Amino acid sequence: MNFVAALNDAAAKNLQTLEEQIRGAIAEDSFIYEACAPLIRGGKRLRPMLFLLCANAKEILPHERTMPLATALELIHTASLVHDDIIDTSKKRRGVETANSKYGAQIAVLVGDYLFAKAFQLVAENDYGAEVSTVLSKLVKNLCVGEIMQDRSLFVVPTMSEYYTRINLKTAIFLSSCCRLGAIVSAMNERDVENLTAYGSGLGLAFQIIDDLLDFFGDEKITGKPHGGDLKSGVITLPVIRALATSDDASELKELVTRGKVTTADIDTAIKIIHATDAVDYCRTRAEAHIESARINLPLTLKTSVSLALEQIADFVVDRTR
Amino acid sequence: MNFVAALNDAAAKNLQTLEEQIRGAIAEDSFIYEACAPLIRGGKRLRPMLFLLCANAKEILPHERTMPLATALELIHTASLVHDDIIDTSKKRRGVETANSKYGAQIAVLVGDYLFAKAFQLVAENDYGAEVSTVLSKLVKNLCVGEIMQDRSLFVVPTMSEYYTRINLKTAIFLSSCCRLGAIVSAMNERDVENLTAYGSGLGLAFQIIDDLLDFFGDEKITGKPHGGDLKSGVITLPVIRALATSDDASELKELVTRGKVTTADIDTAIKIIHATDAVDYCRTRAEAHIESARINLPLTLKTSVSLALEQIADFVVDRTR
Repeated sequence: MNFVAALNDAAAKNLQTLEEQIRGAIAEDSFIYEACAPLIRGGKRLRPMLFLLCANAKEILPHERTMPLATALELIHTASLVHDDIIDTSKKRRGVETANSKYGAQIAVLVGDYLFAKAFQLVAENDYGAEVSTVLSKLVKNLCVGEIMQDRSLFVVPTMSEYYTRINLKTAIFLSSCCRLGAIVSAMNERDVENLTAYGSGLGLAFQIIDDLLDFFGDEKITGKPHGGDLKSGVITLPVIRALATSDDASELKELVTRGKVTTADIDTAIKIIHATDAVDYCRTRAEAHIESARINLPLTLKTSVSLALEQIADFVVDRTR
Repeated sequence: MNFVAALNDAAAKNLQTLEEQIRGAIAEDSFIYEACAPLIRGGKRLRPMLFLLCANAKEILPHERTMPLATALELIHTASLVHDDIIDTSKKRRGVETANSKYGAQIAVLVGDYLFAKAFQLVAENDYGAEVSTVLSKLVKNLCVGEIMQDRSLFVVPTMSEYYTRINLKTAIFLSSCCRLGAIVSAMNERDVENLTAYGSGLGLAFQIIDDLLDFFGDEKITGKPHGGDLKSGVITLPVIRALATSDDASELKELVTRGKVTTADIDTAIKIIHATDAVDYCRTRAEAHIESARINLPLTLKTSVSLALEQIADFVVDRTR
C-alpha cells in the first residue's frame, strides 16, 4: 500500500504545498541546496503529514499557520538522517548517495547542523510560541540520546526493555511529537492532545519494528537499501532478539551478531536462521498490537476525513514495503 | 592579560553562577555529562559573558532572566567546537582529548546535536520570545555556512574579501549576536541594540584575526594546541595571505600551503617565511582597527562599570595569549 493513497484529497494537496515549502527552505544558500536537494527528494513525509492532519483535524487552518512547522519537522528528520549517515557504510539513503559519501564527514555534519538551525528559525519566525519550541527541542534531544544509546552498544544484544527504550527515543517520540504539535497548534483540549500523542506513540513503535523487519526482509529494489544494513553496523533489532530466544541455531546467530564484523555471507546466514523461527510473525504481531493501541487512542472528536486518514496511515505502517 | 581580570566583581560573580548552570545543563543524561564535562571545562566563556554584560548594562536583571540564555550561548559554542573536531587531526581542544578522538565521529556528532537541542530547549522553556530564538537560529546557520565555506576551499588561498566573509560568518556574527541578545533582553532602544551589535562585530573580527595569529605564533603551552594547526588542516588565514602578498619567498610559501599535505617541517618553514615579513604587525594593526571600531560603537548610555568591562574585553582580545 502506498502512503499517499492513504491520504484524502485535501491532505494530498497539502503534500504538494509542503514539497514546495521544503524546497524553499533549503534554497537560501546555493551549496546547501545542491547538497540537500537529493537528500530531501523521495521521503515519505510521514512526520509533517501526521502534523498537518492533526493540525487540520478540527477546522482547516491557513497554510501560514501550519506549513512552516510541517517543513521544520521534515528538516529535522532529514538532518538526523544526514548525521546518521556520518559513519554509515551503506552510503545510500533514500536511494541516493549520502552527503557523507559525496562531500565527506565534516561537510555532512555542517549540512545537518544547518538544517536543524533552519528548522528552529522557521519555528521562531512564525511565532508558534514556547510550548511548540520546547516539544521540538526535546524531540531532538531524545533522538540524540536514542542514537547515542544505539551507537554505544553496537554488536551487543539488547534486552527487550533496552530495545523498546531505544525505539521510543529514536522514533516513537518523534512521531508522537508530530501529532502532539498538530493538536497544540489547533488548540485542542488537553485530553485530545494526550490522545493524539498516544496515537503517534503507538504508530511510532509499530513503524520502527516494521522498519527493523524490512531491513532483513524488505524488497531491496523498493527500500533502496541492501539487506542486513543494521546488522552490518552492529545494530541488533527485534527479529534477532526473538530468533536468539527461540532458534535452535541461537548460539551460531549470537556469535555472528556479536563478533564485531559482519560479512554479506553472515547476513545471508542470519536471515536464514531468523526465517526458520517465528520471528517475522512475532514482530508483525507486536507491530499490530501497537497499531491497535494507536487506533483506540484516536480521539472521537476529529473530523471524519482526518480520522479516516490517520487510520489508513496506521494500516500503511504495518503493510508498507518501504 | 587574563580575561577574568577584565571583569568587575559583579561580572566575576556572574561567571561563577554561569559555570554552575552550564554544568547543570549537561547533567540530565549521565553519558552526555561524562562526554561533555571535559569539553566544557576551561573555556573562556567570552560569548555568555558578553551577553551577560550587555543584558545587565542598564539595570541588573534577575539570574532567571539571563542565565538560561547565557548557558545556551556557551552550549552552542561548545557544540560547534565538538562538530569542528569531527575530522580535526590535532585531537586536542581546550587542552583535552576531543570527543571525536575519544568516542568516535558518530557519537561526537550526536553529542553536538544534543548540546544544540539543549540550548534551544533552554531558550524555549524560559520564554525569551521569537526575536531571541530567531537571532539564535540565524547565528547557528551562519556559523554552518562559514564553516562549510572554509571546508570547501581547504588548501586554496582566499582573497581578502573571502577571508573576511568567512571570519564574519564564523566568529563576528556569533559575538555580535551575544551582545545583541543582551541588548534585546534588557529592552534597550533600537539604536543601542544596533550599536552593541556593531561593538560585538568589531570585537569578533579582531578576535578571529588574533586567533589566526596565535595559531602560528602563540605559546603552545598556553594555547594548548601545536603551531600551524590551521595550515595543517588546509585553512589559510590572514598571516599567510599577507606574507604571500609581500614575501620574497611567496612562491615557496604558496606551493607549501596549497600542496594539500603539510608536514611539521613545512609549518616551521611557513612560520619562518611569515616571520620575515610584516605579516604579524599587519594582522595586529587590522585587529586593533576593528577593536577601535568596536570601542567607538559602545553606547554612551551604559552603566560605567559595564562600559569599562566591555572596553577591557576589547583590550583583552588583542592582548590575549590564548
